[in-house]
Amino acid sequence: MSFSIHPLLNNGFKTGDSNKSGGKLYCHCKANRVEVTLGSDTAFNHACGCSKCWKPKGALFSVVGVVPVDKVSVTANANKLKVIDSSAAIQRHACKECGVHMYGRIEVDHAFKGLDFVHSELSDEKGWQEPQFAAFVSSIIEQGFEQEKMGDVRKKFQGLGLETFDCLNPTLMDLLAAHTAKTSAPKAKL
Amino acid sequence: MSFSIHPLLNNGFKTGDSNKSGGKLYCHCKANRVEVTLGSDTAFNHACGCSKCWKPKGALFSVVGVVPVDKVSVTANANKLKVIDSSAAIQRHACKECGVHMYGRIEVDHAFKGLDFVHSELSDEKGWQEPQFAAFVSSIIEQGFEQEKMGDVRKKFQGLGLETFDCLNPTLMDLLAAHTAKTSAPKAKL
Repeated sequence: MSFSIHPLLNNGFKTGDSNKSGGKLYCHCKANRVEVTLGSDTAFNHACGCSKCWKPKGALFSVVGVVPVDKVSVTANANKLKVIDSSAAIQRHACKECGVHMYGRIEVDHAFKGLDFVHSELSDEKGWQEPQFAAFVSSIIEQGFEQEKMGDVRKKFQGLGLETFDCLNPTLMDLLAAHTAKTSAPKAKL
Repeated sequence: MSFSIHPLLNNGFKTGDSNKSGGKLYCHCKANRVEVTLGSDTAFNHACGCSKCWKPKGALFSVVGVVPVDKVSVTANANKLKVIDSSAAIQRHACKECGVHMYGRIEVDHAFKGLDFVHSELSDEKGWQEPQFAAFVSSIIEQGFEQEKMGDVRKKFQGLGLETFDCLNPTLMDLLAAHTAKTSAPKAKL
């Protein structure tokens, strides 16, 4: 295979431990690592092809899930964190030195407000929720991936048992639409 | 069933005639009908749940396909047409009297520029390309449809043999992404 979707997915992956109740994430610095402590496992963990999520070196996709905001604490070296793009819906708090994103938080009104976005691969522990699907798959083309090889990328995910979407999955897309319905000016009922 | 996805889909549909080479579309006025003549069949015909496409009365979805711009001519009562939202990427030319959209044209730089969006159900003839998939399915929630019934809507399409997407289908999403890759400032190769 001439591409790496993600080092933890390329050769298959194991199902997580349903009793997983959290753990610690570390940035990639050799010293003074930023440490984030999670008080629960992730939900909706998925591969993401968007250009904003942090990806390990050489990977086409990020793997990212969510955890309730009140289950996320920075427990060491918080001073090394900065928000990389304050105009984005998700404020990604990254290590200033190694660039790894430690958590992404939504401060604006949004369907997913109250959930932080985290990469459980930053943990030394096992048993985290396995990826459930692949999102924003076509977006990797915007970042330079060859359009002709997209069939191979989608087949790779399908071979791993992961459905592929060019946006989020239906559950999450429905949540986003329901939030729009609630917060926008009332529209004519169909 | 407590909802109508589209009058031409609710009870199943027939495959189109592969030799179809076009025909005439008419608005819904009783007199002085706007007539648009198409010199080819549609491509990528699909059900669309977005809020902008024209839908027949009571339908949750539009059915819309594309035809090359040079195969589209307004052949009667062109004076009744107006663009309903000039800020939209697709300029939808609608009949001022009955409100039916006769064709949508893209004037800005866009992956789909050169293709007009048309509703072949406005023709009296048969044999037009059958729908190939359902797009922007979750968007019907934004327009007032109950989120809890979305499973039934997706099942209805799947029962008709139509895949459902909450954006466009992979082929079209890849085209959009490839256009973004070409026209945006170069980004780092992955």
